[in-house]
Amino acid sequence: MDQDRYERGRERFLEVHDEKALGAVEGLGDLGRIIVETVYGDVYTRPGLSTRDRELAAVAALVALGRSSQIPQHLRASLKAGLSPDELREVIMQTATIAGFPPAMNAMATLKTIVGDGEA
Amino acid sequence: MDQDRYERGRERFLEVHDEKALGAVEGLGDLGRIIVETVYGDVYTRPGLSTRDRELAAVAALVALGRSSQIPQHLRASLKAGLSPDELREVIMQTATIAGFPPAMNAMATLKTIVGDGEA
Amino acid sequence: MDQDRYERGRERFLEVHDEKALGAVEGLGDLGRIIVETVYGDVYTRPGLSTRDRELAAVAALVALGRSSQIPQHLRASLKAGLSPDELREVIMQTATIAGFPPAMNAMATLKTIVGDGEA
Amino acid sequence: MDQDRYERGRERFLEVHDEKALGAVEGLGDLGRIIVETVYGDVYTRPGLSTRDRELAAVAALVALGRSSQIPQHLRASLKAGLSPDELREVIMQTATIAGFPPAMNAMATLKTIVGDGEA
Amino acid sequence: MDQDRYERGRERFLEVHDEKALGAVEGLGDLGRIIVETVYGDVYTRPGLSTRDRELAAVAALVALGRSSQIPQHLRASLKAGLSPDELREVIMQTATIAGFPPAMNAMATLKTIVGDGEA
Amino acid sequence: MDQDRYERGRERFLEVHDEKALGAVEGLGDLGRIIVETVYGDVYTRPGLSTRDRELAAVAALVALGRSSQIPQHLRASLKAGLSPDELREVIMQTATIAGFPPAMNAMATLKTIVGDGEA
Repeated sequence: MDQDRYERGRERFLEVHDEKALGAVEGLGDLGRIIVETVYGDVYTRPGLSTRDRELAAVAALVALGRSSQIPQHLRASLKAGLSPDELREVIMQTATIAGFPPAMNAMATLKTIVGDGEA
Repeated sequence: MDQDRYERGRERFLEVHDEKALGAVEGLGDLGRIIVETVYGDVYTRPGLSTRDRELAAVAALVALGRSSQIPQHLRASLKAGLSPDELREVIMQTATIAGFPPAMNAMATLKTIVGDGEA
Repeated sequence: MDQDRYERGRERFLEVHDEKALGAVEGLGDLGRIIVETVYGDVYTRPGLSTRDRELAAVAALVALGRSSQIPQHLRASLKAGLSPDELREVIMQTATIAGFPPAMNAMATLKTIVGDGEA
Repeated sequence: MDQDRYERGRERFLEVHDEKALGAVEGLGDLGRIIVETVYGDVYTRPGLSTRDRELAAVAALVALGRSSQIPQHLRASLKAGLSPDELREVIMQTATIAGFPPAMNAMATLKTIVGDGEA
Repeated sequence: MDQDRYERGRERFLEVHDEKALGAVEGLGDLGRIIVETVYGDVYTRPGLSTRDRELAAVAALVALGRSSQIPQHLRASLKAGLSPDELREVIMQTATIAGFPPAMNAMATLKTIVGDGEA
Repeated sequence: MDQDRYERGRERFLEVHDEKALGAVEGLGDLGRIIVETVYGDVYTRPGLSTRDRELAAVAALVALGRSSQIPQHLRASLKAGLSPDELREVIMQTATIAGFPPAMNAMATLKTIVGDGEA
């Protein structure tokens, strides 16, 4: 039964992120299991908001809170979900008006590293 | 010169929010002026991200930080920009996974009040 | 199937809080359902930490973050789970060293209201 | 012995704030005692930074964290310590660049109420 | 006189943490002295809450705020005070429901490093 | 026109920080441009608060929020603007009472590195 939720979450997780990220989450034991089941099995599978929009919200929330450990993972997921580097730059600038410039500066430098200097 | 920036910001502000909200911001003196010029004249007028997506990011950031005073204003702006009540519910649920359930509970109750019990 | 999780969470929720609090959470629609299922059905039912200790952690986290809307509910749940008013005062003082005095002052005033002036 | 610390803190507290504020802090029991002894007896009595500069730092930190309950008290203490309404407006605008516009908007509205519309 | 407070705090600090941690705090000059006197001399010596429960609250508050620099020190202090690795895992999961999954993921990875892969 | 704002901001930025810091900000693209124009061209050029007082507020806000990436830059700017190492130590201790000891410990260690062990 819970195995179904886990499998659904695991499949969704791999669509959003990748195998390497799944390995890191599964390495966290029961917390990892709860994240896969709840965040990816329950929330990310809900209709009514695209993965692109979910990632847009995730990036804005992570930048606002300064959660630097998870920002690279969700910037990559955002690109995979169809947000362009330019859209992500605008999301970070928009978040700067809500949360201040310092966390936006860090996030912009991280995005620059991810998309490469050529593109940035 | 700065008058141009202010006028451009004022116009954009009224598209996103309304006259009443502008009055409140203008009541804050020079801080209000900087907000109109910078946030609405400089950032909201940038191409590359729709108002809908800017409001989606603003709501996610405000909910994550628990900034309850500004959440009603940006939930209303989100509805005006084309986000449906259902999409906003999903944005709030998505943000709960990043920032915890307590600020999401408050935001969901605020959204319920705004869209009315009939719709919620 | 998910109904089982919901029922398990609902039962656990009522042990920790009460009917009135459940009504408020259920009034939040699908977010309320996710909270009952995940927080109370999945996390609070885990062995390995008593309800008393879970509430102690919840109060410390809520006070640190200044989540004033949820503090009264979890202070009451703490008392129900066996933490004494004196223990809660010490938890708040301990949290003040981590998160500063302002959120601790607010929480202490809330606790004083809950336990009554006679006891406080 | 500790009575000396308390008396020193109490005296300093009354220079910074007033009797009414002291009553509120003393109403918090042992937490109030620790605040008077440590914050006002140990920290505020240290040489090397004026009360004006301590209040400037306190306001910036409180605004950045959105600690709305303590902001009025420290805005009043700032005025008493010699910061002008205009200087406080600049401190709030400066903090907006670090912490975002929403908490600055709230603080500016609070300052406006304290100094009165005529002055603001 | 203050020397007594410092000695009492120093002794308590060494029960909770160890010599190496004390060296780091004492290296911070007067701030270190205030921490030893106030946090360990005044707060940690209070009766009414065990060291185990104080550390449980400290870990929950630090994880909620994402204070990654101090989390390893207080996870080690928690183990020394009698919290088991399993109890700490539950505290982190409980805190995830209040503060979101990202800070809990970081704390769980830190705990895993501290208790060693064999135990985790 | 906007070029004037940028030039004014660039000049002010170099008075507050230095060429190396400007290079880092300009490397952030349009976000860097907005920071130079708004924070340094609009806010830092306002009369009514000295650069010393602006930096005092910036340090207090950054420490309170635990924005470790920007703290070294603003500690150096504070020293350049005339705040002494001793005054900065007091600002950090003052902020500890508002935001807790953990972020103050990190900031104090950073300051110690910047001013050198001899001075600290």
